[in-house]
Amino acid sequence: MLKKIIGGITAPKGFKAAGVKAGLKKSGKLDLAIIYSTVPASVAAVFTTNTMAAAPVIVSRLAVQKGTASAVVINSGCANACTGPQGLIDAQAMAHMTAQLLKIEDQEVIVSSTGIIGVNLQMDKIEKGIKKAVSLLAQQGQDHNATTAIMTTDTFPKSCAYEFELGGVPVRIAGIAKGSGMIHPNMATMLCCITTDAAIAAPILKKALTAAVNVSFNMISVDGDSSTNDMTSVLANGLAGNTLIDSTDSKDYTILTAALTQVCIYLAKQVVRDGEGATKFLEITVQGAENDVDAKKAVMAIAKSPLVKTAFFGEDANWGRILCAVGYSEAVVDPEKVVLAIGDVTIVDQGVGVTFNEKALKDIMAQQDITVTVDLCLGTGKATMWTCDFSYEYVKINGEYHT
Amino acid sequence: MLKKIIGGITAPKGFKAAGVKAGLKKSGKLDLAIIYSTVPASVAAVFTTNTMAAAPVIVSRLAVQKGTASAVVINSGCANACTGPQGLIDAQAMAHMTAQLLKIEDQEVIVSSTGIIGVNLQMDKIEKGIKKAVSLLAQQGQDHNATTAIMTTDTFPKSCAYEFELGGVPVRIAGIAKGSGMIHPNMATMLCCITTDAAIAAPILKKALTAAVNVSFNMISVDGDSSTNDMTSVLANGLAGNTLIDSTDSKDYTILTAALTQVCIYLAKQVVRDGEGATKFLEITVQGAENDVDAKKAVMAIAKSPLVKTAFFGEDANWGRILCAVGYSEAVVDPEKVVLAIGDVTIVDQGVGVTFNEKALKDIMAQQDITVTVDLCLGTGKATMWTCDFSYEYVKINGEYHT
Repeated sequence: MLKKIIGGITAPKGFKAAGVKAGLKKSGKLDLAIIYSTVPASVAAVFTTNTMAAAPVIVSRLAVQKGTASAVVINSGCANACTGPQGLIDAQAMAHMTAQLLKIEDQEVIVSSTGIIGVNLQMDKIEKGIKKAVSLLAQQGQDHNATTAIMTTDTFPKSCAYEFELGGVPVRIAGIAKGSGMIHPNMATMLCCITTDAAIAAPILKKALTAAVNVSFNMISVDGDSSTNDMTSVLANGLAGNTLIDSTDSKDYTILTAALTQVCIYLAKQVVRDGEGATKFLEITVQGAENDVDAKKAVMAIAKSPLVKTAFFGEDANWGRILCAVGYSEAVVDPEKVVLAIGDVTIVDQGVGVTFNEKALKDIMAQQDITVTVDLCLGTGKATMWTCDFSYEYVKINGEYHT
Repeated sequence: MLKKIIGGITAPKGFKAAGVKAGLKKSGKLDLAIIYSTVPASVAAVFTTNTMAAAPVIVSRLAVQKGTASAVVINSGCANACTGPQGLIDAQAMAHMTAQLLKIEDQEVIVSSTGIIGVNLQMDKIEKGIKKAVSLLAQQGQDHNATTAIMTTDTFPKSCAYEFELGGVPVRIAGIAKGSGMIHPNMATMLCCITTDAAIAAPILKKALTAAVNVSFNMISVDGDSSTNDMTSVLANGLAGNTLIDSTDSKDYTILTAALTQVCIYLAKQVVRDGEGATKFLEITVQGAENDVDAKKAVMAIAKSPLVKTAFFGEDANWGRILCAVGYSEAVVDPEKVVLAIGDVTIVDQGVGVTFNEKALKDIMAQQDITVTVDLCLGTGKATMWTCDFSYEYVKINGEYHT
């Protein structure tokens, strides 16, 4: 029984966090966060598939190899991407500074950065920020600051916490995330950090995380761009005292994976809801595909289409654009079988427009949350994606974003 | 020696054209065109790969099979797509009406439609329009009306004509096209009709057209959506009197293909220049890729990226977004080798930002036409794509487009 609870990233036992103003953001807002487990934790992470992976991604990929970590240090305001050899030196230095102060090994620190690409980190500011953050770890109420410090163009902080049981033992899991441009599979400028006090072996944790990410962060799209910096990491420190999960066959593995998936879906939806310039939240499902792969192809084509996204911004139920996207998705389609519904109003049946209640559809299109369902009527393949509309504001934000 | 000449789609010998107001567009503008060759012509065409292909695409695919045609009938204002069995009946009826009046076979008529998806053609208006257009074919000066009648959200008509020689014989080639939303490989809501008085066998003409389209219409992108209705057709009626081109080995084949390619590139660029809401014309080249396939993957990722396109709208040389797109393109990349130039200003070398003349770059970004060159420094693969920026106007046009 998964229960949502009040609290942030430190809701699970043994976790501390802090968020500070390091001076990396021109705006002077919070821009550096540390999340710390007082005991070494099992760690797993998934990273961007972009070949231009940023320096912190390269450094953290190595760090998670050995399966344990104690801290995550994250800065916003500068992505430390496309920064050459100096970028790697700086990312390693971030880990080193954090490790020194926390009296842990450099390899126990996960490093993340987000912000503008192609600019080197101001390491003097990073150093002061890390010192300040570490000094604040003992304080209560820093959760919100940590959540806020990782934001870039996000308009609200994204955080959640849940409680559940493993073999009668209460266990907690929590996560924070930031969007909001460049959100696209696989893993866009999307940072997510998850903490849990569950006891689980690192290789098993990696399997649970991969399963969770595949149906959450890999199924959201804001603009179709996959970034250089994406990373979702999870630390599991075992302080809940449950029996160690060391196999994917156990019931506890299934329960923990479900909880992790819930955290990821909750945060992924929050990221879409805060998509740059978004005015609508769209849940798009393709069902009845020949198989899940085809369903995913079709749902992604719809969710990525600028023509579909601008139509929803205009509250225009332009179903032709949705079918058109399905048509170029490379999914197997029989045009004469397709059914399409917006909300609960069926507007296409057997591939052609049908008469429907126009008032009902207008009401649905005027809402902020809209569901779109396409049934290909060919098989049992199904996939759901979450996306947002394309607005004037998206163009404004991205035409003018410099820091 | 290819010479651009004054004139439209009827510049080649033996072609006539007309454009009329059939009443399909709510605006009352010209919306139906006929292009007619007074003698049967070799015909070739390439069509959208969208599985939701519109009825006229299905009908025309069959018509071009036998290799000869005499007329093309095109309407705007209604795409006759996603219209079920009735759509096919209507598209066939358009061919039949045109054939009857021109005293040719139904199968000698190519049918194209463009406009809103999911609405059936108003056949009474189509019939009147076809009658009127056929009656006007004898008149001079209808070229411009034909060019204008195929427009939808285009803001200017697109047409060109060239003269060249085949074995000392003067030959002409001309084309008209319409954009402008949904322009994306492979073949978007892009209609193009080409006429030439060259003598060439239909299967050879198909090869020449495919080659021309691959480096022109298949290398432009406005919004990444590929439409249900795209079609590029060419009629070659042989009235120039050159020796029939019946092999791809001949010098004449090479010359004709070059001319056809020039027509297609000219019109493709015009389509991009008139991209919905476009304020910038971007020529993007990726060179030094391991091979041409990789170059194409990389250049397409850049040209499709909404983040890149909005940055150019904001005159912001945000090169990180360009490298990021290259990074997720799946092209082989060595991040430490990449060179990037905007105009003639190199801003990235060996994968990192370099010092450059900021004034020079600012001047380049302020211009309407901008070239972007990415050198992967790995091999000889190269590809060029043409695209436009993403503006407020794009969102406005597509949020409000209903007819």
